Amino acid sequence: MAKVLTSRKENYAQWYNDLVIKAGLAENSAVRGSMVIKPYGYAIWEKMQAQLDRMFKETGHENAYFPLFIPKSFFSKEADHVEGFAKECAVVTHYRLRNSEDGKGVEVDPTAKLEEELIVRPTSETIIWNTYKNWIQSYRDLPILVNQWANVVRWEMRTRLFLRTAEFLWQEGHTAHATKQEAVDETRQMIDVYAQFAREHMALPVIQGHKSENERFAGALDTLAIEALMQDGKALQAGTSHFLGQNFAKAFDVTFANKEGKVDHVWATSWGVSTRLIGGLIMAHSDDNGLVLPPKLAPIQVVIVPIYRSEEQYEAVVAKGEEIRKQLLKHGISVKFDKRDTQKHGWKFAEYELKGVPVRLALGMRDIENGTIEVARRDTLKKEVMPMEGIDEKIVALLDEIQDNIYNKALDFRDKSIHYVDTWDEFKDTLENKGGFIMAHWDGTAETEQKIQEQTKATIRCIPFDNKQEEGKCILTGKPSKERVLFAKAY
Amino acid sequence: MAKVLTSRKENYAQWYNDLVIKAGLAENSAVRGSMVIKPYGYAIWEKMQAQLDRMFKETGHENAYFPLFIPKSFFSKEADHVEGFAKECAVVTHYRLRNSEDGKGVEVDPTAKLEEELIVRPTSETIIWNTYKNWIQSYRDLPILVNQWANVVRWEMRTRLFLRTAEFLWQEGHTAHATKQEAVDETRQMIDVYAQFAREHMALPVIQGHKSENERFAGALDTLAIEALMQDGKALQAGTSHFLGQNFAKAFDVTFANKEGKVDHVWATSWGVSTRLIGGLIMAHSDDNGLVLPPKLAPIQVVIVPIYRSEEQYEAVVAKGEEIRKQLLKHGISVKFDKRDTQKHGWKFAEYELKGVPVRLALGMRDIENGTIEVARRDTLKKEVMPMEGIDEKIVALLDEIQDNIYNKALDFRDKSIHYVDTWDEFKDTLENKGGFIMAHWDGTAETEQKIQEQTKATIRCIPFDNKQEEGKCILTGKPSKERVLFAKAY
Repeated sequence: MAKVLTSRKENYAQWYNDLVIKAGLAENSAVRGSMVIKPYGYAIWEKMQAQLDRMFKETGHENAYFPLFIPKSFFSKEADHVEGFAKECAVVTHYRLRNSEDGKGVEVDPTAKLEEELIVRPTSETIIWNTYKNWIQSYRDLPILVNQWANVVRWEMRTRLFLRTAEFLWQEGHTAHATKQEAVDETRQMIDVYAQFAREHMALPVIQGHKSENERFAGALDTLAIEALMQDGKALQAGTSHFLGQNFAKAFDVTFANKEGKVDHVWATSWGVSTRLIGGLIMAHSDDNGLVLPPKLAPIQVVIVPIYRSEEQYEAVVAKGEEIRKQLLKHGISVKFDKRDTQKHGWKFAEYELKGVPVRLALGMRDIENGTIEVARRDTLKKEVMPMEGIDEKIVALLDEIQDNIYNKALDFRDKSIHYVDTWDEFKDTLENKGGFIMAHWDGTAETEQKIQEQTKATIRCIPFDNKQEEGKCILTGKPSKERVLFAKAY
Repeated sequence: MAKVLTSRKENYAQWYNDLVIKAGLAENSAVRGSMVIKPYGYAIWEKMQAQLDRMFKETGHENAYFPLFIPKSFFSKEADHVEGFAKECAVVTHYRLRNSEDGKGVEVDPTAKLEEELIVRPTSETIIWNTYKNWIQSYRDLPILVNQWANVVRWEMRTRLFLRTAEFLWQEGHTAHATKQEAVDETRQMIDVYAQFAREHMALPVIQGHKSENERFAGALDTLAIEALMQDGKALQAGTSHFLGQNFAKAFDVTFANKEGKVDHVWATSWGVSTRLIGGLIMAHSDDNGLVLPPKLAPIQVVIVPIYRSEEQYEAVVAKGEEIRKQLLKHGISVKFDKRDTQKHGWKFAEYELKGVPVRLALGMRDIENGTIEVARRDTLKKEVMPMEGIDEKIVALLDEIQDNIYNKALDFRDKSIHYVDTWDEFKDTLENKGGFIMAHWDGTAETEQKIQEQTKATIRCIPFDNKQEEGKCILTGKPSKERVLFAKAY
């Protein structure tokens, strides 16, 4: 069968785009920069959502919903935030259309102009802190631990399916605390939750750390991030958690009386992950044959394909397949039995390989006679004929094994791709010829970071937690440095 | 304790608004017509979503996500649809802000004007059918059974929390079929799903039927609805399912080759329910003391309140309460143990009554000595001291009993509120003095329906399924009629 994908080696960006389209995950829409998330792609998002939502609730958070629109003036209230967010955004200026004079269409009704324009939320700190103002009077009202699942819009000029789209789906946590320490701890707790989710569910090892000032969220005092490595050696920021200090409380005048009756501003955090994670999931694990999905996030974990030559055989094989399907369902495995007789089994094999279904079971007459079944793993592409007896238990174990294997493969690749360099030439050479993460010394200034980016396109991805302290010299300026930081080219 | 709510008798609208605010369900936001759904209100929506989503998937549907923005020109493509939807809507005209010259804020950048304005979706038929065009070539691509959970915006002039807001959350199913009959069956199936959901989960009896032409969805050939009765005698349309014929397929040129190779336009349905359901849930069951929530949708099904006079007693009572909490959790009951020592138990009783928690357990020293516990039902406000032994099983049964009781009470009220009238005077008198549903003859014309509405504010809620055929005369015009239709004043 002809390969349907451009290979990664040939053109990684093209491979990614082909894969997203051909596996039926998403496509571009009629609206510039906005994508349609197709059912198979959305099913991955639903699995991500369900698990993240569980983890948020286990850590004491509740969901709520805040308005899509934000009054323009709100953006001017926090000085840094306005610089970062109030620029490329969708602006609602009118609230009515009318029939056009030629009778052929509709046009904006100029008399229905809003007094104050509304911005389609690019993130919700402003509207939420304006709301919290009414919720918080005393320390008894704190903490507020709220999350929102929502769509947001940022008018990106260059978009790529899942990775960067004008509209995307995400969750944004917004918490309010009585003390600085509590907010700092929350910020850390949530980046740990994201790291655990990436590791255990996405099979994606990540490096956690602080962002440099340049890369910080607009309005934050500290931004924590998880950074993952893609197969082309570029980094992907997969989630961020921000310590906002009292900036938004001051901008929106949110104060509380503490236990001693003293009035103070409230401390804040915000944190989010988005449908971008799906892009990261695809780029981290998939191969030239198609998607490779970790079982914990795969919409279909096991597919059963019947193999037959006659109607009689079809009936026998389907009856047996149905038995196996029911056995697997009892274990909570999501299983698809593709009984369609409009497609040949070879076509189905290729289809589920492309779609990254972790385990494929094929069942023919010989299997029924011998009490066997063919088990194929998507991660290794290996096939094995196994006894039918106890197959359900074996599949349960195999799914765990595949999950672990995908993780270990990504971990191994990531670890091999962390390079320690000490000179500017080495830095440029590594970036150009090897890619991956680079641990290097930096003088700690925004100017130097800026220059490095201009000359190499590499940015500081993070300053890892528990970073080893060691004396060194900045790769660009030669000025003294106390620790290495993590550089990479990034999505 | 002073009553915190206006009574229903005094002012039903005020009672409703007080209740939504004071029970912490939702509040108005800084954006005209947009609400903030607070955690307790959102938790009800999550329970509704989870159950509806299960029912959609059991009937073969998948979720997907389509763009928030719709190009203005799309609305002109379906003639009826444009009349109904392209009027009061939010229009995005620009995509950038810039710093204002006075340096104090931001303003719309006039150079960043969109060539074609984008409409924030009021409903998604147009963008979805524009997408389906690319998904459908042959009968093998059909049916498409897709649902979307999303926010939509309709620029309403008079808004009320949950019942009518500019932005609201909903689900919209959009299906595509090869035959008319299949689409007609799907339309009916989904209104049946909604009716079942209302009955079994919301404890809300509904009348199902066809909308009259006046009340039909813009672009539909037939609209089916479920109509519920609120305690003030007004009807609430709680869900609709539309048979769209080939209108959208024709507007967006979506054709397919059938089994015989003949090309035809695709048949369509769409169906939706929204956060409005929360308004209906509140208005159908709650009383002057607060919310009354059916156990199946209550965020907290059981609350345990400890009663004590000393720290020693507190510890004993809390230890026992913890045991009971764990027992209940094993049955999958969502239970809150309110151990806070910052609030008295009387305050807690009032709070959970206001919040509609179906069962309240109170536990004091005497209970521990006697092996008993006090069980209070929110629906009947009755209290009973029960043996602690086997209390978990009793609570499981009690929750079912409460669910049934709330339903039966609403059913009884609804049935008593259906009036059969034959004359215009009787019609007006019933509307004015009794309210409720009125079954009356109508001559079948849009003009008459319009006149009835102008004179009485009553509309035809639906023409019930399996409606009894009987000869009669239109209450307004005296013209012959073959069946009664269901009238009411409505939200």
